[in-house]
Amino acid sequence: ENANELQTQRDSIAQKLQETEMRNQDLESQLQEVETRLESSQLQQEAFRKNLRTLLEILDGKIFELTELRDSLAKLAECS
Amino acid sequence: ENANELQTQRDSIAQKLQETEMRNQDLESQLQEVETRLESSQLQQEAFRKNLRTLLEILDGKIFELTELRDSLAKLAECS
Amino acid sequence: ENANELQTQRDSIAQKLQETEMRNQDLESQLQEVETRLESSQLQQEAFRKNLRTLLEILDGKIFELTELRDSLAKLAECS
Amino acid sequence: ENANELQTQRDSIAQKLQETEMRNQDLESQLQEVETRLESSQLQQEAFRKNLRTLLEILDGKIFELTELRDSLAKLAECS
Repeated sequence: ENANELQTQRDSIAQKLQETEMRNQDLESQLQEVETRLESSQLQQEAFRKNLRTLLEILDGKIFELTELRDSLAKLAECS
Repeated sequence: ENANELQTQRDSIAQKLQETEMRNQDLESQLQEVETRLESSQLQQEAFRKNLRTLLEILDGKIFELTELRDSLAKLAECS
Repeated sequence: ENANELQTQRDSIAQKLQETEMRNQDLESQLQEVETRLESSQLQQEAFRKNLRTLLEILDGKIFELTELRDSLAKLAECS
Repeated sequence: ENANELQTQRDSIAQKLQETEMRNQDLESQLQEVETRLESSQLQQEAFRKNLRTLLEILDGKIFELTELRDSLAKLAECS
């Protein structure tokens, strides 16, 4: 009778363990997926900022060229 | 003897279950943390794009105003 | 006979004087007209330069505003 | 006596003619000078407008390049 009880306990715990291990596998794959998405989001954001910096340099150039144009117009307004 | 063996099995499985449950808790807290970081990264990126769109509208305005200035200069070059 | 000759001389010179006075009037009206055109050309040029200076101030403002926009984009590229 | 009178008239008219011719020369040189200044003013104004048109073409280019930059920023704001 004691042996029967122990066997029932063992089987119940083994059943619980199996469920927990399945839950574990599920969590591990979820974790991996979210980590992949986080990494992708961060890479995207880095690429974003890099593109933005490139466009900023172009804007700097345009502002410089407009300032040169402004100086040429100023000379025209003064000298002639 | 059979009862002893069953008890040993039961204890071993119970030990394994406890470890697996701890691993589970760890994975769940890891998952929650990474999900929070992903959400934060996405909110940041959304805020980023929203700011960029606001700056774009300002740039649109500046380009429009430069075009008006250009037209005034053109009139000056032609009419006088 | 001497009197006749003198009269002829006097009339000839008087004729020449009349022509010269007409030429004089013509030159004076030409001079006045060219002076008026010169003054008008100079006033036009002054108005031109004044307009150009006004447009230059507007261009200065646009360049300043583009520089502010540039700084906002730079902050966006760095902070986020 | 009549001859004397005619001689006096002739000399007086000849004197007047000489003065008028000098005035003529003066007017002619004034006219030439003002015409030269008018021509110079018009050439200057033409050079002015030509310079302004060159600067306008440069401004057109800058506005075009800012519009291209604007489109690149818009793509960045939408796609990423």
